[in-house]
Amino acid sequence: MAIIVQKFGGTSVADVNRIRAVAETVKRERDAGNQVAVVLSAMAGVTDQLVGYVADAGGRSHSPEHDTVVATGEQVTVGLLALCLENIGVPARSWLGWQIPVHTDGVHGKARIEKIDTDALEQCLNAGQVPVIPGFQGISPEGRITTLGRGGSDTSAVAVAAALGAERCDIYTDVDGVYTTDPRIVSSARKMEKITYEEMLEMASLGAKVLQTRAVELAMKSNQRLQVRSSYSDVPGTLVVDEDEIVEQEMVSGIAYSRDEAKITLVQVADKPGVAAAIFGPLAEASINVDMIVQNVSADGQTTDLTFTVTEADLERAVETIAAKRDELEYADLVSDSKVVKVSVIGVGMRSHAGVAQRMFETLAEKGINIQVISTSEIKVSVLVAEEYTELALRALHTAYGLDAE
Amino acid sequence: MAIIVQKFGGTSVADVNRIRAVAETVKRERDAGNQVAVVLSAMAGVTDQLVGYVADAGGRSHSPEHDTVVATGEQVTVGLLALCLENIGVPARSWLGWQIPVHTDGVHGKARIEKIDTDALEQCLNAGQVPVIPGFQGISPEGRITTLGRGGSDTSAVAVAAALGAERCDIYTDVDGVYTTDPRIVSSARKMEKITYEEMLEMASLGAKVLQTRAVELAMKSNQRLQVRSSYSDVPGTLVVDEDEIVEQEMVSGIAYSRDEAKITLVQVADKPGVAAAIFGPLAEASINVDMIVQNVSADGQTTDLTFTVTEADLERAVETIAAKRDELEYADLVSDSKVVKVSVIGVGMRSHAGVAQRMFETLAEKGINIQVISTSEIKVSVLVAEEYTELALRALHTAYGLDAE
Repeated sequence: MAIIVQKFGGTSVADVNRIRAVAETVKRERDAGNQVAVVLSAMAGVTDQLVGYVADAGGRSHSPEHDTVVATGEQVTVGLLALCLENIGVPARSWLGWQIPVHTDGVHGKARIEKIDTDALEQCLNAGQVPVIPGFQGISPEGRITTLGRGGSDTSAVAVAAALGAERCDIYTDVDGVYTTDPRIVSSARKMEKITYEEMLEMASLGAKVLQTRAVELAMKSNQRLQVRSSYSDVPGTLVVDEDEIVEQEMVSGIAYSRDEAKITLVQVADKPGVAAAIFGPLAEASINVDMIVQNVSADGQTTDLTFTVTEADLERAVETIAAKRDELEYADLVSDSKVVKVSVIGVGMRSHAGVAQRMFETLAEKGINIQVISTSEIKVSVLVAEEYTELALRALHTAYGLDAE
Repeated sequence: MAIIVQKFGGTSVADVNRIRAVAETVKRERDAGNQVAVVLSAMAGVTDQLVGYVADAGGRSHSPEHDTVVATGEQVTVGLLALCLENIGVPARSWLGWQIPVHTDGVHGKARIEKIDTDALEQCLNAGQVPVIPGFQGISPEGRITTLGRGGSDTSAVAVAAALGAERCDIYTDVDGVYTTDPRIVSSARKMEKITYEEMLEMASLGAKVLQTRAVELAMKSNQRLQVRSSYSDVPGTLVVDEDEIVEQEMVSGIAYSRDEAKITLVQVADKPGVAAAIFGPLAEASINVDMIVQNVSADGQTTDLTFTVTEADLERAVETIAAKRDELEYADLVSDSKVVKVSVIGVGMRSHAGVAQRMFETLAEKGINIQVISTSEIKVSVLVAEEYTELALRALHTAYGLDAE
C-alpha cells in the first residue's frame, strides 16, 4: 500500500465546515487504497491573531514563548480534523510535534527540522489510522515547542512525506496547479502536468506563490514527489518531480513575472577595484537583498554606470543607504525607478537548447519593449522592462515559446 | 524563601492588557521576597469557543481530541504572561502540562491529577525564574493531553502548591474574599478573614461560587492553605485553612443560599419497603442528582408523602421519569414547585454549640416564613422556603447569628 501525505492550508481549514470537507478528501484517498497521513495549517487568520498577541505582550518571534503561543493554531485544527474523520468512520488521531516527535534545532521562530521519528506514525498507519499532524511545529533539543516560520507547513508536509517514504506529497491549495504563466493575464496559459524541482524553485521565488521555497528545496534534496492541487476539485494538479521523470523536456516550461522590483542606477561611478564592495556592503548590512546587478564596460576607462534591483519595499532605504556614502562612492547621479517588472522564462530544457535568450530578446524587440537589465542562470533568463509592458511581454513570450493551449 | 502559588482565572487574563496587570501582581509578590509560581486559565470565552468547535466537529468531551483542542486556551495565556513578565524584568518561562509533567489518569475531559513532578519547577524557581503553568491540563499515561473539566484550573493551582510545599495558594477572583453571606442582598455582610475547608466546601456547593469544590477538597486533603482574593486590589482576601488554625470558632460562620432548587412531592405513596429505591433508582439512572429528601411518618399506616429536591434544570426530566413509573409507585398525586430557595447556615462551631437549628427555626417563624423541608449535616442546617422570602430570610438570619458588621 502506498503512503500519501496530504497537506491543507489555512483557507482549507478556515472553519469546521471546511474541515469536514477536508475529511471527505482524506477519506477519498484512503478509499482508493492508500495509507494517508495529513499535515495541517492553522485556521486562516488565527496565526496572525496569535502573532498579534505576542507582539502586544512585547514578545519577539525568536522567543520560545512566541512558539508556544503560535503553535496552538495548528493544535486546534488537527484535533478537529481527527474528530471529523472519526465521525465519517475513518479511524484517526492527532500527533503533535512533541508527540511524534519532530526534532528541530533550537532557533525559535524559524527552526529547521532535523529528524522526524517515524515509529509512532508508522504504527498508527499500520493500525489503519490516519495520523493528523500539525504543520509548522516541532520540538527543540531543550524540549520546547518550536515553529518553522511562515509557510512552514509545506515544509513539514514534505519532511513527513520524506521520512515516511511516501509515494507522493499532495499540497492542497487555492489553485489547481502550476500554470505556464499567470492565467489571469494570459488566457491561453496551460496547467502543467509536471514540472521539475529546479523550475518550481524559480517559479516560487519569482512570484508564482504556490509552494514555499524551503519546501521545494527539501523535496528536491530528498527526491520527494510533490503534487500541487486544488482543495476545491478532485482533478489532478501539477506534479513536481525530478528531472529524470520528465522524458521530453520543453525548451521553456513557464514564464514568471514579479512586479515587486525597483531599479537603482549609479551614474558615472568610479571604475576601480573595491567599488562594488563599497556599494553592496552597506546594503547587505542593512539587510537589503539585491537581486539583479549589471555593470557596463567602462567607456572612458575612468567611470562606469552600475544598475541593480531591490524589492519595492526596500527601495527607499536602499537609496538612503547609498546616498549616505556619496562622498566615498563619488558617483555623478543616482536614478531610481519602481515602475519596472521582472519577466523570466524558465526551463531545464534550456541546458540543451541553444537560442532561448535570443528568442526572448527578439520577441520583446518585435513588440517595441526595451530591455533595461538582463540576468541569466542555468535554467532561467530574466529581463527587467517597464511595468506597463507586463501583459504584452507575457503574452508575446508565451506564444513565442509555443506554450499556448491549443 | 516561601513559595507562593498564584492562580488567575479567565477574566483576569481576558486580553493582553489584563495579562500585563497580572504580571505586575506577580512582580509585587516576588519583590516581597517570595518565590512565585503562577497557574492560569484561558482567556475568558476562549474555552467556550473551543468547546463549540469540538461539538461542531461531532466530538464529545471524553475524546482525547477534545482535550488536545481545548487545552490550547491555557497554552496561549501562559506564553503571553511569561513574555509580559520578562518585559518588566521578571525572568519567567511557561511550563506546559506535558513538559512538567502533570501526570493524570486517562479519563479525558475530566481527568484527575495523580502526580506532579517537581524537579523542573523547583529548578526553575531556584534559578530565580517564575514558572507559568497552564491550569486545567495534564498528560495521560498514554502521553496524550488531558483536561480536568470545568474549573479545573483551581484544582491545578492547589495541586501545584501542594506538590511544591507552597506556603499559600492564592486564588485571584472577581471578588475580594468570602463573605458571611451575599453582600448584594445583605449590606451588613462581612468579609471573613478565615474560613475552614469544611465550611468552604459547604459554601461552594451551595452557590457561593468562589472556589471549585474539587480544589477545596484537594486543599483539605493535602492541608494546603488557600487564599481567595481580588485581582483588582491588593487587600488581603479570605484564608481557607484547617480548623486548627482558627482559635475561636463562631457558632455560625456564614449563610448561603441557592435559588437553583425545585421541589417534588409524591402524595400518598405506598409506605412499604422498596418504595424509596423504586423512586430514586430511576432518577439516578437518568443522572438526576437528588439533594434534600424528606419522608413523613405514615398517618394511616398505608401511605405517606415523600418530598425531595432537584436542580431547576433537572425538574422537567425528573417529573417525566417519575410519571413513567406511576403504575408501579401508585402515588395519588405529584406536585412540583420551582419557586423555592434553599437557605443554609454553616459553621464548624455547630459541633460544639447547641441550639443552632432552633435559633434558625425561631428566627424564620418570627418573620412568618414557612419551612417546607429541613435537612442537616454536621456543620450545616438547610431549609427550603418559598423563593419570595430569600432576602428577608438571609437578613434575619444574618442578624440572629450575630454576623452583621458593626
